[in-house]
Amino acid sequence: MSASVKVFAPATVANVVCGFDVLGFAINAPGDEVIMRRTSSPGIRITKITGDEGKLPLDPKKNTVSSSVQHYLNHIGQPELGLEIELHKKMPIGSGLGSSSASTVAGLFAINTLMDGLLSNHDLIPFAMKGEELACGYGHADNVAPALLGGFVLIRSYEPLDILRLPFPEALYAAVVYPEVDVPTKDARAMIRSKVLLKDAVTQMGNVAGLVAGLFMKDYDLIGRSMQDVLIEPIRSILIPDFYVMRDLAMANGAISFGISGSGPSVFALCKSQETAAQVTALLQTRLKTSGIKSLAFVSQVNSEGPKVIS
Amino acid sequence: MSASVKVFAPATVANVVCGFDVLGFAINAPGDEVIMRRTSSPGIRITKITGDEGKLPLDPKKNTVSSSVQHYLNHIGQPELGLEIELHKKMPIGSGLGSSSASTVAGLFAINTLMDGLLSNHDLIPFAMKGEELACGYGHADNVAPALLGGFVLIRSYEPLDILRLPFPEALYAAVVYPEVDVPTKDARAMIRSKVLLKDAVTQMGNVAGLVAGLFMKDYDLIGRSMQDVLIEPIRSILIPDFYVMRDLAMANGAISFGISGSGPSVFALCKSQETAAQVTALLQTRLKTSGIKSLAFVSQVNSEGPKVIS
Repeated sequence: MSASVKVFAPATVANVVCGFDVLGFAINAPGDEVIMRRTSSPGIRITKITGDEGKLPLDPKKNTVSSSVQHYLNHIGQPELGLEIELHKKMPIGSGLGSSSASTVAGLFAINTLMDGLLSNHDLIPFAMKGEELACGYGHADNVAPALLGGFVLIRSYEPLDILRLPFPEALYAAVVYPEVDVPTKDARAMIRSKVLLKDAVTQMGNVAGLVAGLFMKDYDLIGRSMQDVLIEPIRSILIPDFYVMRDLAMANGAISFGISGSGPSVFALCKSQETAAQVTALLQTRLKTSGIKSLAFVSQVNSEGPKVIS
Repeated sequence: MSASVKVFAPATVANVVCGFDVLGFAINAPGDEVIMRRTSSPGIRITKITGDEGKLPLDPKKNTVSSSVQHYLNHIGQPELGLEIELHKKMPIGSGLGSSSASTVAGLFAINTLMDGLLSNHDLIPFAMKGEELACGYGHADNVAPALLGGFVLIRSYEPLDILRLPFPEALYAAVVYPEVDVPTKDARAMIRSKVLLKDAVTQMGNVAGLVAGLFMKDYDLIGRSMQDVLIEPIRSILIPDFYVMRDLAMANGAISFGISGSGPSVFALCKSQETAAQVTALLQTRLKTSGIKSLAFVSQVNSEGPKVIS
C-alpha cells in the first residue's frame, strides 16, 4: 500500500442529446484532481479544497469525495483508515459537465490506487453513485460511469445495474461551452414532465439505437443525424441562452451534432477534428459575448482512459 | 426484361420486444410466393390466390401485392404495363408475422426482378410501405424493411426515412408459435396508450440501445437481457393466451429471449441452436393444446438475404 497518490478524473457529457439518463461520455479536459495521503490518525479529513470559490463543504460527511471514499472503506472492512484528502477543482460547479462526478471518481480512484487496485473501475461505479446521491439527490450513473470507464458508456439498466462501454471513432472531439448562468441540476430535472407521448418515445428509441449503431460503425453521419432529442431538449433548452442560435452556428460550421451537456447550461458539439472543435467554441463564445454572457470553453478529444494517476 | 418470375419473400418479427416500431427481423420460414408474368394486355390482374382461405381480394386496387406494384410502375413511368400475378400465401393472415408485408415484398421483388433489378431492395421500401398502408391503415416499415433487406433492421426515423441493417450472430434461431386466436393489428394498436411514463421510456431506451450493442457484439447474453418491454408487452400480452406461462417455459428451456411478434398473437423465442428452437416450439404448442388452443409453429434461422427468386 502506497503512502500517497495524486489523480485526475475527467469531466463528462451525460445524456448525449438522445440518450437521457442512459448515455454519457468522458472528455480529456477539464477534470478534477485529488491528492490522497495515508495518515496514522483514524478517519477521513479534507485538508484543502481549491477552485470551488468556497462552495464545497470541508466536512467529510457532507462532501461527495470523502463520503464515497468512506463507503468504499466500509465495503473493504477498513472503515477507520486514516486519510487526508486535497481536492483541486479544475472545472466549474453546476455547469452540467459532471463536476461532482469528477470529484467523486477522483476520490475513489485515489483510494483504490492506494489499495493497489483492489477493485476494478467498473466495480467502483456503485460507490460513485452514492456520491452522486449526496451531491444531486439522485444516484445517477451517466456521469460517474463514463468518468470511471472513459469513452462512451451505456447504462442499459439501473435495476440491476448493467453498464457497458461502447466503441467510438478515434477522431472525435468535443467543443464544450459553459455559459456562466445558473441551472441547478435539481431545477433542470423538476422541469421535465413525468409523461411523454409514446410517439416521441419511439422517435427517441430510434435515435438512441441509431447513435449506438453509429458508434459501433464509426459512422459520423449516422452519429450526427441520430443525435436528436424530442423528449428533453425542447424543455431544458429554455434555460440556456441562445441555445438554438448556438446550435445553428455549430452545425453550420462543421459540427456533426450539438446539444445540452447533462442538465446544462453547458452545451457541446461533436466534431471530427480538434481544429473544427476550436473554431466552433470560438464562434459560440463570441455569440454569447454579444448577448452579454460570459462563458468558459473547453476543446477536448473524447477521453478513452477514465481517471489516471498523475505525477 | 424477363417474361416471368417466381419469388419468395420472408415472414418477419417486428418490434423485437423492446423495439416497438423501430426494430424487426426476417425469418427463413414461413414466407409468401408470387409468380408474375408479363402480358400484352395493359394493367395488372391477379389471376390466382391460394392459401388465404378466400380472405384476400382479387381486385388489383384492393390487394396490397398489386397496389404496391402499381406504385412501382407509376414511379418508373410504365403505369400501363401488363402483368399477371399469382399469390401463394404460405403463412397465416393476421398472425403478427408480417403476412401482408411478405406478399407486398414478394410482389415488388418480382416486378423489380422483371425490370432487371432497376432499383435496390432498399429503394423498394417506400413502395412496400404504401402496401402496408392499404393493408393495415398505417404505413409502417418494421415488417417490410426486414423482409426486403433480410436480417435485423433498424428504422431510425420515418421522417426522413432512415433505415439501417444491423449485424447479428450467425447462430440465431427463432422459435415462432402462432396461437390460432384472432388479434387484428388495428385493435392491437388501439389498445396502446398515447402517453407513457418518461421513466418507462428511459428503461426502454436503455434496452433498445443494449439490444443494438448486443447484436453488434454478437453477445447473446446482452441481447437476451436487453429484450424487455415495459411499454407495450404489458398491454398486448393480455390478448395472448398463456403469454407469461409460455415465456417462463421458453426461458426455462434455453431460449435467450421471448416476446410478442409484431402485434401478436404469434410469439417468438430467440435461441442459439435449431434444436433448442425446435424443443421450445414443441413445449409451447403442447402448453397451448392443454388450454384447448390450436397453434402453428415455425422453426427458422434468422433470414439474412431477404426475398429471392425460386425455381
